[in-house]
Amino acid sequence: MTDQNLNDDLNIAELGQQLRVDAVRCAAAAGSGHPTSSMSAADLMATLLARHLRYDFDQPDDPNNDHLVFSKGHASPLLYAMYKAAGAITDEELLTFRTLGSRLEGHPTPRLPWVDVATGSLGLGLPVAVGLALTGKLLDRLPYRVWALCGDSELAEGSMWEAFEAAGYERLGNLVAIVDVNRLGQRGPTRHGWDTGAYARRIGAFGWHTVEINGHDVAAIDRAYAEAAAADRPTAVLALTTKGAGVAAVADQEGRHGKPLTDPDDAIEELGGIRRMRVHVTPPAKRAQPHSFGEPGTVKLPSYAVGSEVATRNAFGEALAAVGAARPDVVGLDGEVADSTRMDQFATAHPERFFELYIAEQQLVAAAIGMQARGWIPYVATFAAFFTRAYDFVRMAAIGGADLRLVGSHAGVSIGQDGPSQMGLEDLAAFRAVHGSVVLYPCDANQTAALVAAMTDYPGIGYLRTTRGETPVIYGPDDEFSIAGSRILRSSPADQVTVVAAGITVHEALAAADDLAHDGIAVRVIDLYSVKPVDAQTLRDAARETGRIVTVEDHWPEGGLGDAVLDVFGHGDQAPAVLKLAVHGMPTSATPAEQLHAAGIDRQAIVDAVRLMLSPR
Amino acid sequence: MTDQNLNDDLNIAELGQQLRVDAVRCAAAAGSGHPTSSMSAADLMATLLARHLRYDFDQPDDPNNDHLVFSKGHASPLLYAMYKAAGAITDEELLTFRTLGSRLEGHPTPRLPWVDVATGSLGLGLPVAVGLALTGKLLDRLPYRVWALCGDSELAEGSMWEAFEAAGYERLGNLVAIVDVNRLGQRGPTRHGWDTGAYARRIGAFGWHTVEINGHDVAAIDRAYAEAAAADRPTAVLALTTKGAGVAAVADQEGRHGKPLTDPDDAIEELGGIRRMRVHVTPPAKRAQPHSFGEPGTVKLPSYAVGSEVATRNAFGEALAAVGAARPDVVGLDGEVADSTRMDQFATAHPERFFELYIAEQQLVAAAIGMQARGWIPYVATFAAFFTRAYDFVRMAAIGGADLRLVGSHAGVSIGQDGPSQMGLEDLAAFRAVHGSVVLYPCDANQTAALVAAMTDYPGIGYLRTTRGETPVIYGPDDEFSIAGSRILRSSPADQVTVVAAGITVHEALAAADDLAHDGIAVRVIDLYSVKPVDAQTLRDAARETGRIVTVEDHWPEGGLGDAVLDVFGHGDQAPAVLKLAVHGMPTSATPAEQLHAAGIDRQAIVDAVRLMLSPR
Repeated sequence: MTDQNLNDDLNIAELGQQLRVDAVRCAAAAGSGHPTSSMSAADLMATLLARHLRYDFDQPDDPNNDHLVFSKGHASPLLYAMYKAAGAITDEELLTFRTLGSRLEGHPTPRLPWVDVATGSLGLGLPVAVGLALTGKLLDRLPYRVWALCGDSELAEGSMWEAFEAAGYERLGNLVAIVDVNRLGQRGPTRHGWDTGAYARRIGAFGWHTVEINGHDVAAIDRAYAEAAAADRPTAVLALTTKGAGVAAVADQEGRHGKPLTDPDDAIEELGGIRRMRVHVTPPAKRAQPHSFGEPGTVKLPSYAVGSEVATRNAFGEALAAVGAARPDVVGLDGEVADSTRMDQFATAHPERFFELYIAEQQLVAAAIGMQARGWIPYVATFAAFFTRAYDFVRMAAIGGADLRLVGSHAGVSIGQDGPSQMGLEDLAAFRAVHGSVVLYPCDANQTAALVAAMTDYPGIGYLRTTRGETPVIYGPDDEFSIAGSRILRSSPADQVTVVAAGITVHEALAAADDLAHDGIAVRVIDLYSVKPVDAQTLRDAARETGRIVTVEDHWPEGGLGDAVLDVFGHGDQAPAVLKLAVHGMPTSATPAEQLHAAGIDRQAIVDAVRLMLSPR
Repeated sequence: MTDQNLNDDLNIAELGQQLRVDAVRCAAAAGSGHPTSSMSAADLMATLLARHLRYDFDQPDDPNNDHLVFSKGHASPLLYAMYKAAGAITDEELLTFRTLGSRLEGHPTPRLPWVDVATGSLGLGLPVAVGLALTGKLLDRLPYRVWALCGDSELAEGSMWEAFEAAGYERLGNLVAIVDVNRLGQRGPTRHGWDTGAYARRIGAFGWHTVEINGHDVAAIDRAYAEAAAADRPTAVLALTTKGAGVAAVADQEGRHGKPLTDPDDAIEELGGIRRMRVHVTPPAKRAQPHSFGEPGTVKLPSYAVGSEVATRNAFGEALAAVGAARPDVVGLDGEVADSTRMDQFATAHPERFFELYIAEQQLVAAAIGMQARGWIPYVATFAAFFTRAYDFVRMAAIGGADLRLVGSHAGVSIGQDGPSQMGLEDLAAFRAVHGSVVLYPCDANQTAALVAAMTDYPGIGYLRTTRGETPVIYGPDDEFSIAGSRILRSSPADQVTVVAAGITVHEALAAADDLAHDGIAVRVIDLYSVKPVDAQTLRDAARETGRIVTVEDHWPEGGLGDAVLDVFGHGDQAPAVLKLAVHGMPTSATPAEQLHAAGIDRQAIVDAVRLMLSPR
């Protein structure tokens, strides 16, 4: 690999010093940032950039490019110094670090075309790198390598071990974790200090090849990377380094984390001054196209007979299998519950595009982040409740502008006997509070199928909530549903109250409307299947025309459907009278019907709420 | 240990069969549940109950009792069958499994006095067991043992490896993980099947003692537990078992997870019929009191001069150190950011009650769950953003009725240059959507100190949100603040609009009120420091008296302060006009002032919003 290298004449140790100097300079200019965490890894990155990375900075979308993920995202000064050394950014831009308007943020984001994923929450980058490596091996089927620069502190995060386990099991020989063992975390020493053997034993036990080196010895680094390239398994390079290496005032000192150097000019002088070395990063050897699983076609969604009873989770599974048949770029990921979420329908239909990540929801979501970075369209399914396990990763995915389709099954108390640990009761709140998200909650099978299709090309974080039990099919297979839409199911000029429901409560609302009609009370019923964004106009019209709104949801009172409706009236206009029905008490085990009744979100509760709103105060 | 055992004459294999029969019976009665996952571990639990557990079922609060955590909570039929065998519940109660009103829920909860923690989300029980073991060793200082029954599937969860790392590092010889390696997960085979060596290598690398046994060989199980008792490190008993063991129709069969047996009567006959064996569980040998760190005293909170500038995170650290001085039952837990959250103040003052869990937020929260189960009062601090990592554990803690005090620093865009990965912008939404939670967001140092004191004895999940930068001290040290309270900071009969703020936006609101007053516009300003529960009466009064409300928060628009205010008007009454100011766009790096301005939540934005509300439509 190295014999044809463009940088054979380059003094890599000198390049490392340049990276240090530039890290010190940009942090000094910003008045904040993490120079010392950059300095420890400078030789590791200099060697990578000059000798082993295969990357065309002019064509960051080239599918043959290697991927470099800074799992220790706070070392962004080092990453940006590398970009400068590679000629991708100017020295002027480097010094805009952390200022308003600069794309050189405190932690890297894909606003920079060479960055695949927003990092900065430790323990995220390596799992995403596993997703990229899975993509290279099994989807793109291209020989690019994935390099992840990891900190030693973040090896305490469980998500890293989900990644070690997944990569070891899948024998991802295209993945290299470079661990910068500088022994000092933010607060003080890490658990294992400079004991690279402690890490090597652990990571090795997960089926990885491990190499322990001095992380400031360029020749040793070079050999380790060559060894990694030759391995048929993922490799962890455990590099013993010094935090703040190169500047005596900060080297291996506690209390110097995340701060610019006190005397940057002295430090730069100690590092040998400002250099203007330019690295010729070797482009990929071959320019091949990624593998394709066939030609796109027209989606033929499943259809369900009106009046039949079908669980929306079943419709999701069948619809996704259908979408997958028409869309060879759609992939499915499971957290070992595919039989429950019905992702198994996709797995059976498209086994080559199905990924089993086992019960490891952080790696599950991270794998999808990696896949979408390479243009694939991942659907991820687990229980709605268990997405809480990966909430940080979803938050970070939104920061990175990732496109994810997440499907949470077993929503709400209506799952019944399994009890509260399995009930998604905070998922609407959690996903609504994700930047730019879409939150969908269908009530029947045809609507579910249509929304699965609608999600496929919708950007950002899409979340679909499905129900465990069977619900009546009330829509025809040709009915159209769109993101930000709603459906008025009952309406008359005599409507006195509007009932807004979604998912399972739509059927309770319809039953309540029948009961009330029997007593001469006309209510409007709105199926607000798009919980975010909501169909504000339809809600405003209903408020104006009926004056009163009852919302009913199988979710905690906070942050769900009711709050989504109230939010429509949080823009300065006069609001209608609103009464929220939601789950207030902690559920226990009971039948689905008993649960809906106990929670006060069933037919009878809606009837009572409407009557309450119409009673004189 | 075994020579004095009360059950020396007991045929433990027979007891195992009884546990299987009772698991089959209660799942059959319920029509749901997990008998096969119970049957694999029946011999493991029979041996534990009869020979090794030290527990007084009549005195579940005895501090000397061992702890048994079902990390594989879905095996609840087995747990309840054990309780029956121990005489703690009747056969009649056993058969109430999963029915409305029964305390024998689908997954165990502390509604049962012998259960420490609600489980059912896989990967939670072992980390909580680590918390209990840390408590036994370092807080209670009692020789009880902690036994965790784990599934093999859940070993894919990163949280389990956070636990293995923490326990190995702390050399928790009082902890035993019993892993039921039945090779079958919910959907199909696990990654490693019956390869107990694969698990032993991994767990052993984390510093644990490991024993591989046949999990149906009572003598081998007995020896393994004795070996575990003698070890000076945590022990993992890796037990090779058969899912559904004892009944040919389901033994080692795929597709039999989480379902009652088709022919329970045949199965019971195959298992040898119903037995009525009674186990005499050995009580703890010694009846000692837990260690005490001193006598309780009166809390002397720090005080801050009005007009000075103090970060609320600093006030939190100082207040918690003061609370800790008066309250020897208060403990502090850190996720390797104590210098940022200011938990380091507590660590310095009370090093024996301070626990460093490193960057492993799930283990961090789980350790606290374990500690509170033994009556300690844990405060947990990390960045607000990074609590998203442990959201599932907080959700589960609420299901289990745990008392936790969680403190999230670095809230909102006002942290400045570090960028969005470090900003807590969904924490109010996430924590409001936790059952029974309290959410506090102080704006100044004296208020922070008062609220830290108020949280200490408040039950349930308490969350305090602190701010990174300095804010003016506006309250005196003797001002009183309470959960569900608020403070009216500006008020006059001429108020035309009410501005509701909390935390950093209180200061922007006050500045805006000054600007508006200069132009003859009187506004009411409410400091809504208790975001949940809210002071509904004060908000209703303000709505009635001023007719219009502007809310302003350093948080996404969904689920935060604005929604908490709107929710007050979600109970059927006519609502005022409300205008929500919140963070709509994705922040980048910028100074704190630039961030507040860009987000539209600063003084000027509030002035503009008030003017907009007063302008003719």
